[in-house]
Formats: sequence, C-alpha cells, structure tokens
Amino acid sequence: MSPRKPRFSGVIPPVVTPLTPDGEIDAASLERLVEFLIEAGVSGLFALGSSGEAVFLTDARRDKALEVVVRAAAGRVPVLAGCIETTTGRVIERAEIARKLGADAVVVTAPFYARIHPVEVDRHFRAVRAAVDLPLLAYDVPVSVHTKLTADLVLSLAADGVVDGLKDSSGDDVGFRQVVLRAAGLAGFSALTGHEVVVDAMMLAGADGAVPGLANVDPHGYVRLLRACADGRWADAKAEQDRLTRLFRIVEAASPATAGGSTRGVGAFKTALALRGVIGHAAVAAPMRELTADEGRAVAAHLEEAGLL
Amino acid sequence: MSPRKPRFSGVIPPVVTPLTPDGEIDAASLERLVEFLIEAGVSGLFALGSSGEAVFLTDARRDKALEVVVRAAAGRVPVLAGCIETTTGRVIERAEIARKLGADAVVVTAPFYARIHPVEVDRHFRAVRAAVDLPLLAYDVPVSVHTKLTADLVLSLAADGVVDGLKDSSGDDVGFRQVVLRAAGLAGFSALTGHEVVVDAMMLAGADGAVPGLANVDPHGYVRLLRACADGRWADAKAEQDRLTRLFRIVEAASPATAGGSTRGVGAFKTALALRGVIGHAAVAAPMRELTADEGRAVAAHLEEAGLL
Amino acid sequence: MSPRKPRFSGVIPPVVTPLTPDGEIDAASLERLVEFLIEAGVSGLFALGSSGEAVFLTDARRDKALEVVVRAAAGRVPVLAGCIETTTGRVIERAEIARKLGADAVVVTAPFYARIHPVEVDRHFRAVRAAVDLPLLAYDVPVSVHTKLTADLVLSLAADGVVDGLKDSSGDDVGFRQVVLRAAGLAGFSALTGHEVVVDAMMLAGADGAVPGLANVDPHGYVRLLRACADGRWADAKAEQDRLTRLFRIVEAASPATAGGSTRGVGAFKTALALRGVIGHAAVAAPMRELTADEGRAVAAHLEEAGLL
Amino acid sequence: MSPRKPRFSGVIPPVVTPLTPDGEIDAASLERLVEFLIEAGVSGLFALGSSGEAVFLTDARRDKALEVVVRAAAGRVPVLAGCIETTTGRVIERAEIARKLGADAVVVTAPFYARIHPVEVDRHFRAVRAAVDLPLLAYDVPVSVHTKLTADLVLSLAADGVVDGLKDSSGDDVGFRQVVLRAAGLAGFSALTGHEVVVDAMMLAGADGAVPGLANVDPHGYVRLLRACADGRWADAKAEQDRLTRLFRIVEAASPATAGGSTRGVGAFKTALALRGVIGHAAVAAPMRELTADEGRAVAAHLEEAGLL
Repeated sequence: MSPRKPRFSGVIPPVVTPLTPDGEIDAASLERLVEFLIEAGVSGLFALGSSGEAVFLTDARRDKALEVVVRAAAGRVPVLAGCIETTTGRVIERAEIARKLGADAVVVTAPFYARIHPVEVDRHFRAVRAAVDLPLLAYDVPVSVHTKLTADLVLSLAADGVVDGLKDSSGDDVGFRQVVLRAAGLAGFSALTGHEVVVDAMMLAGADGAVPGLANVDPHGYVRLLRACADGRWADAKAEQDRLTRLFRIVEAASPATAGGSTRGVGAFKTALALRGVIGHAAVAAPMRELTADEGRAVAAHLEEAGLL
Repeated sequence: MSPRKPRFSGVIPPVVTPLTPDGEIDAASLERLVEFLIEAGVSGLFALGSSGEAVFLTDARRDKALEVVVRAAAGRVPVLAGCIETTTGRVIERAEIARKLGADAVVVTAPFYARIHPVEVDRHFRAVRAAVDLPLLAYDVPVSVHTKLTADLVLSLAADGVVDGLKDSSGDDVGFRQVVLRAAGLAGFSALTGHEVVVDAMMLAGADGAVPGLANVDPHGYVRLLRACADGRWADAKAEQDRLTRLFRIVEAASPATAGGSTRGVGAFKTALALRGVIGHAAVAAPMRELTADEGRAVAAHLEEAGLL
Repeated sequence: MSPRKPRFSGVIPPVVTPLTPDGEIDAASLERLVEFLIEAGVSGLFALGSSGEAVFLTDARRDKALEVVVRAAAGRVPVLAGCIETTTGRVIERAEIARKLGADAVVVTAPFYARIHPVEVDRHFRAVRAAVDLPLLAYDVPVSVHTKLTADLVLSLAADGVVDGLKDSSGDDVGFRQVVLRAAGLAGFSALTGHEVVVDAMMLAGADGAVPGLANVDPHGYVRLLRACADGRWADAKAEQDRLTRLFRIVEAASPATAGGSTRGVGAFKTALALRGVIGHAAVAAPMRELTADEGRAVAAHLEEAGLL
Repeated sequence: MSPRKPRFSGVIPPVVTPLTPDGEIDAASLERLVEFLIEAGVSGLFALGSSGEAVFLTDARRDKALEVVVRAAAGRVPVLAGCIETTTGRVIERAEIARKLGADAVVVTAPFYARIHPVEVDRHFRAVRAAVDLPLLAYDVPVSVHTKLTADLVLSLAADGVVDGLKDSSGDDVGFRQVVLRAAGLAGFSALTGHEVVVDAMMLAGADGAVPGLANVDPHGYVRLLRACADGRWADAKAEQDRLTRLFRIVEAASPATAGGSTRGVGAFKTALALRGVIGHAAVAAPMRELTADEGRAVAAHLEEAGLL
C-alpha cells in the first residue's frame, strides 16, 4: 500500500439520487441504497456527484439528498459532497451548506461555462480552500467542464495543502499515473479513479481507491476487487474486473439515437437498482429520460449474466 | 426590415454587473449604467448574460442585479433575463424568479455539464416553454455550453412556438444566416447576433438586432450603426463598425498569459466603463482578476482613439 | 474597393475534380468545368483545395488534375494550387511541383496530424515562403487541420512578406474582420472568404473576394453577387446571396446518417454539376460515396428552385 | 496469456527515424538503432509511425527509412510499417510500397483532414484490407486524426477479418479494456497499447503487447517489464513501470512555450538516443526544432537517474 496513508481509500460509490416519478427526492429509496452500499463494505459515499445528478437538482433537492445520505450513513463511513457549480463564489456557497449538513469532505471541479485560464483554475481551488474548513478533493472531469486538471496543477495544489486528493474521471490514465507516482510522498493525499473498468489496473498503478458509478449496482463486486488488489492477488482482481467490465455494458442499453451520455449512465444504474429491488423508481431528472421497457430488459440480461438477479 | 415584425430588435446590450471591491452588487453603478444605455437609445437590456457574469454570481446577487436593472429601466425598454443554469429544473426555477422580479423575457442556453443528446436539448427547451409564461429566447453559446444549437433545431422550436428568438453567440455566421433566411415567415421571431464586430454584416444578412458586449462601452456607436443599417446606408454602417471593431481590441488588453477569455472580455468592458466614469469599480468576480494598471492604460488608449475619453 | 489593391480578388471557385467511376481524373469533364467557370466571369481558379478532393487523390492524380486546369485556363485567369500536406517538407515538395506545372500561386494550411505549437506554425509558413518562388496564400481551415490561424499570426506573416493573402474557411468571421481591417495598409494582400452564404456580408466587411465551393455550381450567381458588392448595390447583393443561400442547401441532400461532411459537400456539388450537364459523372473518391438517386433528386429540386435546371 | 495467440505481442518500439542535420535519413544511425533494439529483446519494430516522423518525411525519405529498417532487422523480428495518409487511395498506395519494401504488416489510421462519417471510416478499413495482402493493424490516434475508433468498430472489423489488431494511442483505456475483453475469442488478434506509462496496467487488463515511444530509449526496461507481466510478477512489473514513468518525463524537457507535442516527444527521444551514443544526431524535421543544450541537459539528468548514462 501507499506509504502516504491516504485519508480516503477503498470503494467510494458516487451515490445515485433516487427520484419519485414527479421528480422529488425519494428519501426512502436513498436510505435503502445507502444501507445496501455500507453493508456491502464500501469505505465512503460520494453524494451529489455526476452520477448523483447534482447538476439536475435544484438547490433544495440537493440539500435534501445530502441530508438523507448523511443521516443514513450515520457516521459509519465518511460522506463526500460534490459542490458542482460554475465558479468560485457559487462553489463556496455550496461547500458551506455541505459542511453544515454534515459532509466530511467536499469535491470540487474546475470552473465551467466561464472561459478560464489555468492560472484562474489554480486561484479557484485556492480560494475554495481558504473559505471552506473541510478536506477538499479535486474532481477532474473534462468531459463535463471542458478543462483538464494537469498533473502539475494537482501536484502543486496538493503540495501546498490546497487539495487533499483527486477524483479522476478524465480518462487520462497517463496523467493519473504521473499524479500517483509523484504524490507518493504527500501524506494523506488520496488518488481515486472514477473509471469503472480499469480499477484493477489503476490500483496496480498505485491508486488508493475508486469512485465507480457502477458500484451503486454491484458494490460487493468492487469491494472484492479492491480486497484482491490490497492482497496482491492480481489475477483474482483482473477476473473480478473483467466480470464488472462486462456488467458495465448496461450503459449501452439506452439507445444512442435518443439518449445522451448522462441518461445512458445514470438511467442504467437506476434501472439496475430498481430491478435489484434497492430503489423504488428508475426515474431520472429532465431533460434526461427513463429507460424504456426494452432497454430495461437489456439491463436485466446483463444483471443476470453477472449473477445479480 | 424583416416582414416578420420581430418582438425584439435594435441594440440590446448584455449589461455588465458592476461589483464593489468585495464582490457585492454595486447598485448605484448599475443604475448609472442602465441610465447611460437607455439615454444612448438602446432598445432593450439583457441582464444576467455571460457579460453580466451570471455564472459568477450567487443566486442572491443574481436576484439583486436583476432587481436593479428592472427598477432602473422602469419600463422604458424591455429587460431580458438570462437564466443560465445546467439543466431543465434549475432553469425553470431561475425563470420563475426572473418573472417575479419583472423580466420581460428569459434567455436560455442548452444544458451544460451534463452529457446531453440533441433530442434532450429539444426536450429541455420545450419543458422550459411549458413552465414559464414569458417570451423565451434561445441563447446559442457553444464556447460555454459546448453544444451548438443547429439551425434545424432553432427553426423547429420557433415554428412550434417554443422559442421567440435566437441570441447567437456561436461565431457560426453560416448557421445564423440559415436561421435568418428560413425564419422569414415566422411572425415575431427575433434573430439577434452577439458578435461585436460583424453587426453590420449580420444586419445586411437579415438580423433583427444585436447583443454586443461592447455596447456597454459605446452604446451610442451601436445605436448609430443600427440606424445606418435600417436606413440602408451600408457604407456608413461599415465605417461605424470598423471604428467599433478597432475599439473591440480592448479585449486584448489583459495578458493572455494570465487571463482567460471571461476576464479579458468582461474585465475590459468594466475597465472602460470605469474610465468613462459610468461605473465606480472595474472589479470582477473570482476566479477572474481585475485588469492591471498597465492593462488599463491599454484600454484607455483604445478609448481615446475611438473618441470616447 | 480596398486601397491595398489585392493581387487576387473576385470569385475564385475551389474547382472540384471530376472523376470517372473507377476513380481516375475525368480530364474532359474538368476541361468543360474550367470553361464553364471562366465563361461565367470568375477571376481565378483554386485547384486541389478541399472541394477539389486534394487529400483523396494520389500524387499522380493531383498532378494530372492541376495540369488539366492550367492548360484549360490557358492564362485567362490565374490558377491557385492547393499544397495540402501534413508538414513543411512535404508541402515544399508539392509546391515545387505546382510551380513546374504552371500554377500562379500556392495555397498552404497549417501542419496537421503532427502536434504543433503556434511558434512552429509560424516557422512552417516562413520555411515554405523561403523555398517557393510563387505567391503564397494561407488557408485557414481548422475543421480539417484542427489549428486556427490567428489574426495576429496572419497579419505578422503578411507584414513580413511571407503570405500574400488569406483564404478563410474557419467560420470565424470575427477573426476575419480583424484581419481585413488591420491588413488595410498591406499592399497586395488578398482577403478571401471561403463561406458560401456570407459573401455579401464579408464583402461589406472588406473582403477582396470569395472562394465558395458552391461557385462550381452557380458561378454566374456569385459573379453577379460580387459585382453588386463592388457597385455598392447592397440590397441586390443580399437578394442574390439569399438565393444562393437557399441553393446551398444541396449540401443537406446526402443523409447525415451515412455521409460525412466531405461527402455531403463535394458529393452534392458534383451531383449538381452532372445534373447541369457540365461534368460526366458525380463519382467521388473513397471512402466517400456518391449521392443516391433519391439524394440526387433533392439536389435537382434545389437547382430547379434556383432556376438552374 | 491470452487464449487467442496474438500474431504480434511483446515490445514493439515505434522506431524513431534518425536524420542528418540537413534533413536526410541517417541510415547508419538507423541501422545502429535497429540493432540496439533487437539486441535488447524487442519482439518487433514499428517503422514510420508518429514517433518515426512519418508525416514529416517526403515519400522518398519514408521509403529509404523503411528499407533500412527491413534490411537491418534481417527477418529477426517482424517489421510493421505505418501507412499514415489522409484517405483510402493514398493509404493503399503507401501500403503497396511497404509490401514491396518487405514490411510484415501495415498500420493504418482513420482518415484525417477529410470530414468523415463513422460509416466511411469502416469503409476505409475494408477497402484497404481488400487491396493489401498483408496483416493490417488499426492505429487509434485521435490526438492526430481527430476521430476515435470505437470499440464496436474495431471489434466488428476484427470479427470480419479486416483488421488483425489494434495499436491504441487514444488514451482511452476504458475503450481499450472493452476491446481486449471482447476480443478474447478472436484468434490472432493483437491488442497493443501505445501508452508508455500504463503498460503494466494494460498488460494486467489483457493487452498482448506495447508500442511505447520510450522503448527507443530504454528497450531493456520495457522487455523486463513485459517479462514480469508474463510471469505474473506484478509488483516487479509495477516497479519497472514506475522507473520508466519517471524516465518518461524527458518529454517535458522541451519548453511548452516554444515546442509542440511532436517536438517534445520525438525531440526528447532522439536527444536521449544521441546521448546514449546510439544515433549520431538529435535533429528533427521542420517545423519541429531540435532540443536546446539546456533542454538536452534536462534529458541527460533523467537518463542518469534511470541508470542509462
């Protein structure tokens, strides 16, 4: 294991936010989901991330969802709260609310919508750090914010105590490898991969943990996978990962002719969780759409193949 | 002029939001700016757009800014309110607030951050339309939302009464020309260009008006320009546009080595307005930075050349 | 007109390269096309551009096509030759061949495929200039080479005598306006727009001429359009442009479900030219495909509406 | 190891092409490099790839470089030849030449410069396959060609016998994992990663081999790394990879203020090889530039740290 004793490690699912058919937070389902994940052995919960539909929820619904997760977790595992907002002032406002609602850490992206220089991205994280009294993880998700957090930036922010870790959803494993390698001496720094199908590989590369959306659906699988990695049983890890990689094809169930990436991902996770009886509805927020019955059958087939139905 | 009698036409500046050095709305400056613009002869005001730093302001500050603009306009010209939010539910919430605060129309972009299919963009606008009882303009700004509104989509939404116009900040004059041409028969539809330096050209092409950020700085120039276009005095229009195009180089004052596009644009507009004595401070919201003294002198030189100091 | 007396002006069609069904240069058709264009009153011919399928042709076929155009033009109008190659050495080799084959100027893009710094783009044009004894036009086509030639770069190269003009296919009319305005004092510099549907607008903005692919199909229309611009008859220019803008919708005939942008553009131009009896075949080079019979009928309908059949 | 018995596996360096200071192929250096690589135990040689400056060389120089590699390899390991050209006809022409010059396989990208539909990318590979009587590897390099080869496309082409393998330089390890997993039953298919710093991880994921540019500089390291993977000594593999990952920072030696990605990569590899005494000159082709003396010292420092000087 890493000599740096990361603050956050293991499986930390980006918790989906169950909704009622009319778009309200389905608190009972969310409580069941949190229980399901914790019983499976996850190490933490990431609320209000991309998989949590954070950018689809009004502030009131965001607050409600975070309250439910914190209350249901009941201190058994830390709760990381996404503070996904366009720019500094808005992020700080959300982070302050997250702190009051009991979050154990905040997760922050580069600014988006605004046209921003790398120097301004650096200033953004430093300003959030100065304003918020909680551990801060940088969330690298260029597919959504259209800015890549470079290895140099992340490492500089980490060295200065600005960020306590990285959730990498960039798809750039090359950059992630550089961060992991060069962060080796940074006490407490947590390097987390967000990519469902390369967790074994990134753990071999030195990651501390994973934040895979698919862990909502099969937390037991990811917990087994990370245990195998921790034990150095790499062939077992690969076998488990291969099973999960096949399962991940549920995100191909929704037709690419009528569904965007958000729908295909979150919609499939929710459909699978409804099929597994964990949540009550597979509803997603507008302008996304719920999977059709046919698409739901494709999800079910993958769940069966993976031994989850 | 267009046979379609557009609801909105002429010069509609995207009003910048003056801030105090500690980041609060500078209401007195904003009132003076509104007065300055209306006295120059603008046809409307677009509050809370990209130039208005909408994505940099907390909701409370957005509300404050819109209140001030509506009160200062006092019904003399219509106030369009940007409702720039990531997805449908959040846009509707902002639009409802805008309506209550007295806006005369709302301006809405494609969803952002979320990974969205064209079908979902269409659904987004239709859902906003169904929920909001105000004229609705589509705001095409791919540099910020990373989705282009195609001519086909805009025209289909317009034909169905979903959108009442287009504010085009896409840089894609080819697509804009198709919209203008094919919207000729759509009663009330307003085609507005957002590009400061091709207003004469787009008016020749059939635009109904312009929403140029630079019109904060020199509203009289843009009013003269559109009057020349309306009169068919195209050589005069071109001469005025050439002067404004030279003036637009104030956005090159801030160093590209340390300032992003938002800083370079909004920062320069505010610096120019402060130099002209219209607003009290050139402060911009984090993570942007105010222009330096040297950069300010470059802005001043352009203002002098343009006869504005 | 521009005080700078541009070397190249007026309508300069990017000549398509007629092919036989088995992919060879159809010299007889190409000769007829050149005659058709010159008789319509064009001011020059741009061979081996994007519309000329340059990147689809082997070197031997490129040579053949250029030979035919030069011979058929017979000195009546200048022939500009595209030298579209990945990097400096390869461009210079092509430019030398173009010179030997009788071209009057060469047209060169930024490097592509290679990952290149702006400093290296500058060095590229200067090296080509040093090696090639012909007028040199910069071809700004980021959709193909994925590098934008900035106004500053083009103006700096022009000021140093490296480039003699710009063919702008960038879609960035804002940048083009800056070039046109700031190049006003550069003797001989030619600013040419490549965008079919904003020629009136760009001429108003100060362009010297146009290189519209659609001018293959309706050269008489573009010649009338530029004459109206030159005479200051802007309403006439706009009316002609509107007609051509409607005609340009032939590029929407090929289904976007099975045809890329190159096929949709060049395929439609060739189909229209075959329908008008100018060339013998509408064949395009692999991996493009010829338009289907149904798609051809859509092209024919647009031609009829435009009075060209 | 994979049950599919891949045709190509192990370390297959993308051989750099040494040049003389005046830009000619430095045949003596290239011969020494081939000998250096084969003696280190590589399994194959990839000539005329991106690292081989293929797009910077005239056809005559490409031919010369390939001749030298084939002759120096002398059948001891297979030689794969890049046929990097814009479109189908040009690729086929290059592939035919490669076959005549003795290449054992050809490596082909998606079309570039042209604006191409996925259906046309599929057609491209099938047409090349039909025309060329050699094993064919698909080269996925979106950073250069701006088209991503999807897992579905690669697997469909592989299932139909069109492609015999994949060289993945896409940075998309998620997609690569899907290809590796779903290609498990495809006899002879070779899945090769092109990313220097995740070779251990991708071998764990099921890759058959690697094509790392850095293997020019330290072939022994990569050979040890793949041997450790083959033996299931994953901790050893990771340790070797970590050393190589640190060494890979030689690509950061050239200043990003004056050098593009091609210069920074190839320039550094050549500088390192010159420092190690393998090749005579570190010259690169225009518009790239050779590393400065200072930058060379940074490369030397990394080589020393890695125990290579």
